[in-house]
Amino acid sequence: MNYTVADYLLDRFTEAGINHLFGVPGDYNLQFLDNVINNPTLAWVGCANELNAAYAADGYARCNGAAAVLTTFGVGELSAINGIAGSYAEYLPVIHVVGAPCLGAQRRGELMHHTLGDGDFGHFSRMAQEVTVAQASLTAENACYEIDRVLQQALLQRRPGYLLLPSDVSQTPATRPTKPLLPQQPSTDPALLAQFRVCAQARLAESRSVALLADFLALRFGQQKALQQWMDDTPMPHATLLMGKGLFDEGQQGFVGTYSASASSPTVIQAIEQAELVICAGVKFTDTLTAGFTQHFSLQQTIDIQPNAARIGERWFSGIAMAQAIETLHQLCKHQVSGWSSPQQKPPALPAATSGKLDQHAFWQSLQGFLQAGDIVLADQGTAAFGAATLTLPAGVTFIAQPLWGSIGFTLPAAFGAQTACPNRRVILLVGDGSAQLTIQEIGSMMRDGQRPVIFLLNNEGYTVERAIHGAEQRYNDIAPWNWTQIPQALNVDNQAQCWRVTEPVQLDEVMQKVAKAERLSLVEVVLPKQDIPELLQAITASLAKRNAG
Amino acid sequence: MNYTVADYLLDRFTEAGINHLFGVPGDYNLQFLDNVINNPTLAWVGCANELNAAYAADGYARCNGAAAVLTTFGVGELSAINGIAGSYAEYLPVIHVVGAPCLGAQRRGELMHHTLGDGDFGHFSRMAQEVTVAQASLTAENACYEIDRVLQQALLQRRPGYLLLPSDVSQTPATRPTKPLLPQQPSTDPALLAQFRVCAQARLAESRSVALLADFLALRFGQQKALQQWMDDTPMPHATLLMGKGLFDEGQQGFVGTYSASASSPTVIQAIEQAELVICAGVKFTDTLTAGFTQHFSLQQTIDIQPNAARIGERWFSGIAMAQAIETLHQLCKHQVSGWSSPQQKPPALPAATSGKLDQHAFWQSLQGFLQAGDIVLADQGTAAFGAATLTLPAGVTFIAQPLWGSIGFTLPAAFGAQTACPNRRVILLVGDGSAQLTIQEIGSMMRDGQRPVIFLLNNEGYTVERAIHGAEQRYNDIAPWNWTQIPQALNVDNQAQCWRVTEPVQLDEVMQKVAKAERLSLVEVVLPKQDIPELLQAITASLAKRNAG
Repeated sequence: MNYTVADYLLDRFTEAGINHLFGVPGDYNLQFLDNVINNPTLAWVGCANELNAAYAADGYARCNGAAAVLTTFGVGELSAINGIAGSYAEYLPVIHVVGAPCLGAQRRGELMHHTLGDGDFGHFSRMAQEVTVAQASLTAENACYEIDRVLQQALLQRRPGYLLLPSDVSQTPATRPTKPLLPQQPSTDPALLAQFRVCAQARLAESRSVALLADFLALRFGQQKALQQWMDDTPMPHATLLMGKGLFDEGQQGFVGTYSASASSPTVIQAIEQAELVICAGVKFTDTLTAGFTQHFSLQQTIDIQPNAARIGERWFSGIAMAQAIETLHQLCKHQVSGWSSPQQKPPALPAATSGKLDQHAFWQSLQGFLQAGDIVLADQGTAAFGAATLTLPAGVTFIAQPLWGSIGFTLPAAFGAQTACPNRRVILLVGDGSAQLTIQEIGSMMRDGQRPVIFLLNNEGYTVERAIHGAEQRYNDIAPWNWTQIPQALNVDNQAQCWRVTEPVQLDEVMQKVAKAERLSLVEVVLPKQDIPELLQAITASLAKRNAG
Repeated sequence: MNYTVADYLLDRFTEAGINHLFGVPGDYNLQFLDNVINNPTLAWVGCANELNAAYAADGYARCNGAAAVLTTFGVGELSAINGIAGSYAEYLPVIHVVGAPCLGAQRRGELMHHTLGDGDFGHFSRMAQEVTVAQASLTAENACYEIDRVLQQALLQRRPGYLLLPSDVSQTPATRPTKPLLPQQPSTDPALLAQFRVCAQARLAESRSVALLADFLALRFGQQKALQQWMDDTPMPHATLLMGKGLFDEGQQGFVGTYSASASSPTVIQAIEQAELVICAGVKFTDTLTAGFTQHFSLQQTIDIQPNAARIGERWFSGIAMAQAIETLHQLCKHQVSGWSSPQQKPPALPAATSGKLDQHAFWQSLQGFLQAGDIVLADQGTAAFGAATLTLPAGVTFIAQPLWGSIGFTLPAAFGAQTACPNRRVILLVGDGSAQLTIQEIGSMMRDGQRPVIFLLNNEGYTVERAIHGAEQRYNDIAPWNWTQIPQALNVDNQAQCWRVTEPVQLDEVMQKVAKAERLSLVEVVLPKQDIPELLQAITASLAKRNAG
C-alpha cells in the first residue's frame, strides 16, 4: 500500500506517545479508519458517542501525556466540542481529527449531509478556534507541514489542536517524516535566568519561612518528579489545590493537605498563607477552588511560576520555562535551607465516623482505607470531587477531577480513557447519580474491552451539589430514578460485572473487601442522604450562591 | 413577588406557544429555574444531558412549532450545541437560554468555573453565532428589547436563537410586555406579487403537465394545510423528498411517493421529473436525498418557491413570502386545470415479503400495516430513515427524520420531545442499535414522565449504514453489544415497560398486535441481518462512497 497523509498523521501520533485513537466512525472518516486499523502500533477505541470519546481522550491524556480523538464533520465534532473545551481549560493536549467531505465538494459548496446546508464548510473550524490552540484544514499540499505545526503547538502548550481531514486528502500519497516532531526543548535565555537566580536568592535569603503551593499546571508541564525531588531534598510545608491533587505523595513529611483558601483547614491556612515566602508553581486561583477568591497572598510574599514566565514579588521574568525556574529554586533552597521553620506534620486523619449511618462522612472515611498506592482515582464535579479533596492520597496515586471546567459526567468516560492508558492500574471512579446519567453509555465500552474499574455510584437522589447552592427541595434538582445495579448487565451481553447496593456503613466495608480483589467491573451503589454534603463543599457553595446573586 | 426579566422571557415563551422548557440545571441557571417552577403555564422538563435536551426541544418544535432549551454556561451550552446546529440546518426555532455568571464577575474577568480560565466570557456566544440566527447577551438595560428581537428573528426565520442570561439579570425587575411579540405578518409588495402572478399564469398556460414537489421548508413555514387544500382542489402528481415526508396524506389521489432523484422508483421519476412544469415548494436538494445530486430539472422547467423568494424559470422574485406564492399558484391552477394530464394513481404497495426471514424487507412490510392515522413516526438517520422513506403514510402522520444534519441518536430524545408536545398521539420510534447507544438516557425520562412510545430497536450489530458505504466487515463499524430488552427496567425504578426480542416475522406480527394497544412504554428489539439494508439506501450509499473518494 502507498504511504499516505493518514499514515503520516498516525506516525506522528506514535512519536508523540499516542497509542490509542478514541472516537466514533462516520462516513467522512471511514477511509482514514482503514489506515488506523492497519496501523501496527495504534489501536482504535470506539466509543458510544462523541462527547464520551472526547472525555475518554482527556482521561487518557491525563495518564499518558497526550491523546487523540476522531469524529466526523459537523454532527460528530460538535458533539465532542464540550469535551475539547474542557481539555483546553484544563491543559490537556488532545488532538481532534475531524473527517470532512472531500475537497471538491467543499470547493463547489455542495449541500452535503452534516453541513448547515448553506455551502459554507468553515462554520465548525471557526467554532474550534475558540477552544483549541492550533487548527488546520488539511489539503494535499499542506497536510504534513500543517499536521506538524498543530501537533507541535498542542504538545508544547499542552492544549488541544484541531485537524480537519477531508476524506480524499487522508488517502493522498505522502513522504514519511524525516525530522523529529518536536525540536530540542528551547532553553531559557541564560542572561534572563541569571537575573532570576540572583533575585530569587535574595528573596529566599530574607525569608524565615518558605512554603510551596503547587497546582495542576506543574503536573501538565511535567514537573511532578522535579517537585517531589525538591521536597525530598529540602523539606518544607507544601500543598496543592484540588486541581493539582496527586502531585505529591500525601503521606510524606511536609505535605499539609489540600489548599482551598478560606475553606481550608486552619492547619493548611497557617502552613501556606502565613509563610513569609510562598512559592506558587503552576497555580491558577479559580472560584470554586478558593471559596470565591478568598486566598490571602500579597505580591511581595509570593514567587509565581507559570509555564513560560516567573514572577518574584512584583517583577515578571517573561520567557523562563517552568522546568528551569523550578530547578533554579530547588538548587537555591539546597544552600539556604537552614534557619527555616521545620515542616508541619502529616495532615490529621479524618475524624472517625460517629453517626452509625451511611452518610458522606462515613463514606469518605471508608474510602480512605480502601485506597492503595498506584490507584487512579477519578472524582466527578459535585459531592464526589469535594469529598475526595479531603482524602490523603497514598504514593503514586493519580487523581483526576475537572474543577475549573466542571462538566458533570466527565469522569465516567475519562475513567474508560484512563484505564485504556493504564490497563494494569486499579481505577476507582467516584461519581454521583446525577452526573453518571449524562454519560452512562461508556460502561458498555469498559465491559466490551474487559476493563475492571471499581465504580462507587453515590446515589443521593439528584443534583446534590446544586441543592447545596440553590433550590434544595426544588423539583429541577431531581432526576429520573434508575436501577443502578442493573445498568452493567443491560450494557453488556456477557454480564461480567458485579454490583451491590449498600445502605449501611458495615455493608460498605464488607463490599470494599470483596471489591479490592475483584476480577470484574464492580459497581457499588452507595445510598446517601439527599441533602448531605461534604464540609468543604458547604463552605464553597455558600460563596457561590452569594456570587450568583450578582 | 416582583416581575422580573425571567418572568418576561417566560411570558414571551407562552405567547409563542412554548409550554415546556427542556434542559439541565446548573448553578448559573438555578435562580431562573425558580421562576420556571413558579410559572403557571410553562412546565420544566429535565433531561439526562444537554445534547439530549436540545434534541428533545427540536422534536418538540417539529410538533409544536417552536421550543426552548435551558443549559448552563460553557459546559452545558457546548454539550447542547450539536443539537442546536441540527435545528439550524433543518429550520426549527429552538430558543437556547444559557444561564451565565453574574455580570459583575464577567466585567471583572474573574476565573470562574465553566470558563476557559482566561477571563473571556465571549468564547461560547461567538460559537453560537455560527448556528443561530440571532444572539443576545442580556443586561438589565437591554433584556426585554433583546429578548423580543431574538425571539422574533427565530420565529420568523424558523431557526434557533441564543440568549445569554446572567444569573443576576434574570432577577432584575422588568415591565410586562405591552405589545404583541410578532408584528402583523408583513405582506409582500403588491406590485411584485402582481408581476409574479402574470409570469406564473403564462408559464402555467403553456404547460401540458404540472407536478408539485414539496419539501421540508413548506412544512416549517406553515404551508401544510395550504398545499393539501391545493392538491384537493386541483389534483396533480405530487411528491415530497424524505425531509418533507408527512406533508401529504400519502393515500390520497395524486401522491406518487417519496422523491429521491435517481434512487426513486421509475413511477416517481416519471411523474415528477418528466412533467413540463415542476413547482418546487420549500425544496433543498441535498446529497443523501438525491443520491448525490442526480435530480434532473432544468431552470426553465421549474417554479421554485422558497421562504422569502420565488423563481419562475430564470427570474427571481425576491421578497415574496412562501404563503403568498403558494396561494397565487393555487388560485391560478383552479382556473387552468383543464387540459393537464390526470394524476398518477397511489404509489404501489411494497411487494410482499417472500424470504420467510426477518429482514429489512419483512420489517418494513409489517410496519406498514402497523401504522395508524395520526401517529408520530421518528426514523433515525441510517437504515431506519431510508427504510421508512418507502412507507406510505396514513393521513395525519407526522414524520420526523433528520436527513440533512444527519446526527445519529437524534430521534430517541426527539421522540421524548414529540411525546411531550403531543401526549395523546402514538409515538413510534425507529432506531438502530448503533444510533440508540448515543442517547439512550432519555428512555429514563420517558418513563419518569409516564410516556408510552413504541420503540422498534433495529439490532443489526453496529453501524450498518456505514458498512454499506465503507468497511462492511471492519471492526470500527462494530459497537459494544447491549442487552436491549433490559435497558428500560435499568432506567426506571418502577419498571413500567414491556420489552420483546423478535427474530422471526411471525413473532414480529404477534408483538405488533400486542403493542398496538399497549398502555406502557414498549421496546421491541428487532434482530436483523448485519449487512442487510433497504434498497433505497443501497442506491444512495453507492453514490456517497464514490464521492468520499474525491
